[in-house]
Amino acid sequence: MTETLFTGIAQLVTPPPGPQRGAAMRELMVIQNAALLVRDGLIAWVGSENEAPTASAKHGLGGVAVVPGLIDPHTHAVWAGDRLGDFEARVAGVPYETILATGGGIRSSIAATAAATVEELVALARPRLEALHRSGATTVEVKSGYGLDFAAELRMLRAVRELGREFAVIPTLLIHVPPTEGREAYVRGVCETLIPEAAAEGLATAVDVFCEAESFSVEETRKIFEAAQAHGLKLKLHADQFHAIGGTELACRMGALSVDHLEASGGAQIAALAASKTVATILPGVTLHLGLPAAPGRALIDAGAALALGTDLNPGSSPLFSAQLALALAVRLNGLTPAEALTAATVNAAAALGLTDRGSLSVGQRADFLTLNGPDWRDLPYTLGANPLRDVFVGGVKR
Amino acid sequence: MTETLFTGIAQLVTPPPGPQRGAAMRELMVIQNAALLVRDGLIAWVGSENEAPTASAKHGLGGVAVVPGLIDPHTHAVWAGDRLGDFEARVAGVPYETILATGGGIRSSIAATAAATVEELVALARPRLEALHRSGATTVEVKSGYGLDFAAELRMLRAVRELGREFAVIPTLLIHVPPTEGREAYVRGVCETLIPEAAAEGLATAVDVFCEAESFSVEETRKIFEAAQAHGLKLKLHADQFHAIGGTELACRMGALSVDHLEASGGAQIAALAASKTVATILPGVTLHLGLPAAPGRALIDAGAALALGTDLNPGSSPLFSAQLALALAVRLNGLTPAEALTAATVNAAAALGLTDRGSLSVGQRADFLTLNGPDWRDLPYTLGANPLRDVFVGGVKR
Ligand SMILES: [Zn+2]
Ligand SMILES: [Zn+2]
Repeated sequence: MTETLFTGIAQLVTPPPGPQRGAAMRELMVIQNAALLVRDGLIAWVGSENEAPTASAKHGLGGVAVVPGLIDPHTHAVWAGDRLGDFEARVAGVPYETILATGGGIRSSIAATAAATVEELVALARPRLEALHRSGATTVEVKSGYGLDFAAELRMLRAVRELGREFAVIPTLLIHVPPTEGREAYVRGVCETLIPEAAAEGLATAVDVFCEAESFSVEETRKIFEAAQAHGLKLKLHADQFHAIGGTELACRMGALSVDHLEASGGAQIAALAASKTVATILPGVTLHLGLPAAPGRALIDAGAALALGTDLNPGSSPLFSAQLALALAVRLNGLTPAEALTAATVNAAAALGLTDRGSLSVGQRADFLTLNGPDWRDLPYTLGANPLRDVFVGGVKR
Repeated sequence: MTETLFTGIAQLVTPPPGPQRGAAMRELMVIQNAALLVRDGLIAWVGSENEAPTASAKHGLGGVAVVPGLIDPHTHAVWAGDRLGDFEARVAGVPYETILATGGGIRSSIAATAAATVEELVALARPRLEALHRSGATTVEVKSGYGLDFAAELRMLRAVRELGREFAVIPTLLIHVPPTEGREAYVRGVCETLIPEAAAEGLATAVDVFCEAESFSVEETRKIFEAAQAHGLKLKLHADQFHAIGGTELACRMGALSVDHLEASGGAQIAALAASKTVATILPGVTLHLGLPAAPGRALIDAGAALALGTDLNPGSSPLFSAQLALALAVRLNGLTPAEALTAATVNAAAALGLTDRGSLSVGQRADFLTLNGPDWRDLPYTLGANPLRDVFVGGVKR
């Protein structure tokens, strides 16, 4: 047994264990002059420093604020190639169709990723996960989806498994881009070959689908979801990014962990999410990078939904390498309060991954926590362009 | 004489010496496989590595991109107190008038700053300038303006002078907030006491005024500008942030170095800037932080203006601690291309400070330059939330 009592915490701020919905997302626990006892990587006690139990080891933090480690529930952090040329063309006004037609766009990421080995993918993704980690993300979801052919999809997931030796990553099999031909056979292959193989090898905990007018239909999504459930995998969905075609409602009915994006969600989709246990995940990096409308974060919370937020780190639509900045952007772009944003980026993000063991600095939870440079936790949502964190602790150990 | 030849530059990218106006802002010099000779802190030669002269010392950069050091031409980096409570109240929907009435708002920064010693102000500003420096800013303008009473204004400028021992800072005397009473006497005091004292002590290179419906009028601004010119100080202006009341036109007529903000500029103001030598400085951090309309960066360039960009680092309206992120935001929020943003953040920002000796990697200029982590300079405008820079060199020396 190892135990450490962390003292000198000017302010310990945490949501209760989650998920939290609606107005409850604003109810943070705040302890001034706090202490935190960690035993074998878990939180054994938390409270006022002057009531703290004794412990074999003590670690003074010097009067800073402490919050839970952030959880990034939506990234595409494994990719090869770059989209810098696309970026330059797009902001100069070149239409996406032209970029695609000249060999750019998502097909270029697919081609480069499919050509890379597992080792190459790991080496490319490592600095991205390091950046997310420094920005406060102690757990990061990583999706496949640039593979297209099944072997490449499985290589992406093996790369995520390798990265799991260094980071707390949660792997998701993403069915992302339909083939230009043979679409029915492709969906059948996903259901009958790819999902069973990924499940048998333990390479993914959930299956995600990009359900959109120009991608997979609601009916195709339903088939893929049924195959996922038949193999014991959880469900996640990309939906309502450009059009609300019914994916959100399907995901809520089928008990998906989360529906992500939601920029085009209207009243019906907001009501469906509020009435379900499915977490609504917003991705403000896309809003900033592409200049598209923001997801209705404020309306979702006001309707009573459980809202999470993530970076959506990916080369085409969100080159956002900071969980802290994602949180700060959700306050500016989606109308969240700082307290709501902290809940969204911790316990609710955990729930979006099916996790209940982290996200709150409460007894029994993983001792993943962040120390700030100063004594006021609000520097976390406030700061733009600098890192307000001093250190990142995982299981009670500084990393 | 010390000289170093920098080699292993995959891509050297720079605007020509500036300022550059309109379409010329897009014309970058790009040299693949470049080398850079630095002699006594200045650039002595730049070109293809295989044509490089010999030098007594060599420094291989390992195949990365190199761009000029960024210049942040607009900050309020010296302040005491914090505005975290204001931030939380504002995003929860509390009106600014209520925040002011309950002791928050800019008056709280003024009270805290006026109560601080020069040493305290230096200690508070140092980590902010360090953050800007790490983000690529090799020259940073810092304004006074939270002093209100003249002694406090001069203390702020003395703090900037102290910071000048560690950083390349350019001090500006900002006439920021009119007193609630005795306004005419205050403006007279600024002209007859504050400006002469600041000039005599060499504490500022320019005088800036906040010209706005609720702050100083155009006529008051004209009087202050005339006093500044009489004492050999250059002119800068905060104008058109909320209302275009004529400050921009005045500044252009009087030959100001720059007019900054411009969110409310219309056709007349854009035409005035395009027809003058005055630099138009945009501040995208304010747009992101306050959720207000963006300055018409695209229209200003298309009209032929010389555009610069800055962080506007300040606690109330732009807690943006990164010159790199300011550049990246100008592409997303103000419609600049990456090339235009680099010109805006280097040679044009220098011109906004009256400087012609920096901002371009050209012979005779200061050897202030940045190395990126990778070989493509476009990571600089592209990356959100991580630092794409490996190192910052000032006068040819890694800092
Ligand atoms: Zn995504
Ligand atoms: Zn300003």
